[in-house]
Amino acid sequence: MTEGQDPLLAETPYPLQETLGFTIVDWAPDFARVELPLSEHVLNRFGVPHGGVYATLLDTALGYCGCYTGSAENKQFCLTLSLNVNFLSRPKGKRLICEARTTGGGKRTFFAEGLVTDDTGERIASATGVFRYRGTR
Amino acid sequence: MTEGQDPLLAETPYPLQETLGFTIVDWAPDFARVELPLSEHVLNRFGVPHGGVYATLLDTALGYCGCYTGSAENKQFCLTLSLNVNFLSRPKGKRLICEARTTGGGKRTFFAEGLVTDDTGERIASATGVFRYRGTR
Amino acid sequence: MTEGQDPLLAETPYPLQETLGFTIVDWAPDFARVELPLSEHVLNRFGVPHGGVYATLLDTALGYCGCYTGSAENKQFCLTLSLNVNFLSRPKGKRLICEARTTGGGKRTFFAEGLVTDDTGERIASATGVFRYRGTR
Amino acid sequence: MTEGQDPLLAETPYPLQETLGFTIVDWAPDFARVELPLSEHVLNRFGVPHGGVYATLLDTALGYCGCYTGSAENKQFCLTLSLNVNFLSRPKGKRLICEARTTGGGKRTFFAEGLVTDDTGERIASATGVFRYRGTR
Repeated sequence: MTEGQDPLLAETPYPLQETLGFTIVDWAPDFARVELPLSEHVLNRFGVPHGGVYATLLDTALGYCGCYTGSAENKQFCLTLSLNVNFLSRPKGKRLICEARTTGGGKRTFFAEGLVTDDTGERIASATGVFRYRGTR
Repeated sequence: MTEGQDPLLAETPYPLQETLGFTIVDWAPDFARVELPLSEHVLNRFGVPHGGVYATLLDTALGYCGCYTGSAENKQFCLTLSLNVNFLSRPKGKRLICEARTTGGGKRTFFAEGLVTDDTGERIASATGVFRYRGTR
Repeated sequence: MTEGQDPLLAETPYPLQETLGFTIVDWAPDFARVELPLSEHVLNRFGVPHGGVYATLLDTALGYCGCYTGSAENKQFCLTLSLNVNFLSRPKGKRLICEARTTGGGKRTFFAEGLVTDDTGERIASATGVFRYRGTR
Repeated sequence: MTEGQDPLLAETPYPLQETLGFTIVDWAPDFARVELPLSEHVLNRFGVPHGGVYATLLDTALGYCGCYTGSAENKQFCLTLSLNVNFLSRPKGKRLICEARTTGGGKRTFFAEGLVTDDTGERIASATGVFRYRGTR
């Protein structure tokens, strides 16, 4: 960890975060956690969260987990190449929790996996993804 | 096509549709088309649409394309089991267009594929998915 | 576990097992382990195991892990609907080891994940998959 | 097409090709076709081709389709990062045919999709994949 501003606090919410209401709540080497309080605006025609909402949380957490540098002044960015989501169940609770970890990779690309649960512990959706680093580290 | 109300018109927009602004604009046997005018509220930290937005359009269109019955009174529903999205490029235009078609399946499950382009014809994201029918047909 | 013949011993090797040389070495509720000694006949044009060989081990282990009944007389079978493989690295050792576990599902379908390592512990390929049970349980 | 040896003829079959019996029968810019005559040695415990065999053909064809240079002296190689296979049906014929095309990409990575059919036209398995070029072009 380098000195300076906390890298997580330095991340101002971007528009889709505001639109859907999710927050990056934890960020560490090879790890990220994203949360979304459930409310009506993310529901589909069946009254449950739309699959795209899980995909959004997973894409976010998987991407962040491979880009931690510990420094708000030295950012690392990535592009998603491929994301594969499995839809396991539906939430019973009031909040979605998405945790992701890197599983491999090198200087140019990395692999990550993640899981969406809710605050009751229900396993809802999982994903794996391949990402490419942008620019140089 | 059975008589009665147009099945597409009978679909009232659900909450996430209103939140993100996408519309199911065409629906036919084994086909669906979904569109989203681009605006700031779907952007990520790089100022381009978040990957989860493409995943949302693809999950929607792939699911719909396997559930057309031609009748608003005789609906067919499905659950997404798995969705795999490849991120090909970024949009240059002002509107996202997502078309999907079924590629196989039977009474219990179906397979579909789809592509997100923009109004300039740029190919942006593609997906394949596996879906399970809900209840009985 | 019901009495009777060991379900693993009751599995006679099928043709592709003989062709490639892999063996189901462990089978338990929601778990399976498959192994393949490395030899030249599975190599690709670069002199490393072909990606299809990892996919074969993963498809096998993921499918088996959801079909354990404990009884050779009461078999459970499945069909792979979708398999997603990420290629993490290349082997350094002499034997491939593929372990798989179920991650969700119900009466009709199940989800599983697995990892191929080698005998040095190198992580080589991972997969997630969706499977459908055949017939009735 | 540059002059010199035909690039396809210059590809000597590698070990897994000999083991399973498949052949690269067509290769052109952004396209490849691989074929496998069906015989018992690729069957699974149900007496149909193992899913890993389809994955092998797809991984091969998708990789080749992005690496055509037209010159046996100027080869382009790639690594598979991720492969997603959907299993649509089972063969009725005597030969598997796998065709693949690129769908996007740039200097470092490419995307491809492919389909396995048989000689009766049955659609059996489809795949999409992400690949990374090796070395420099």
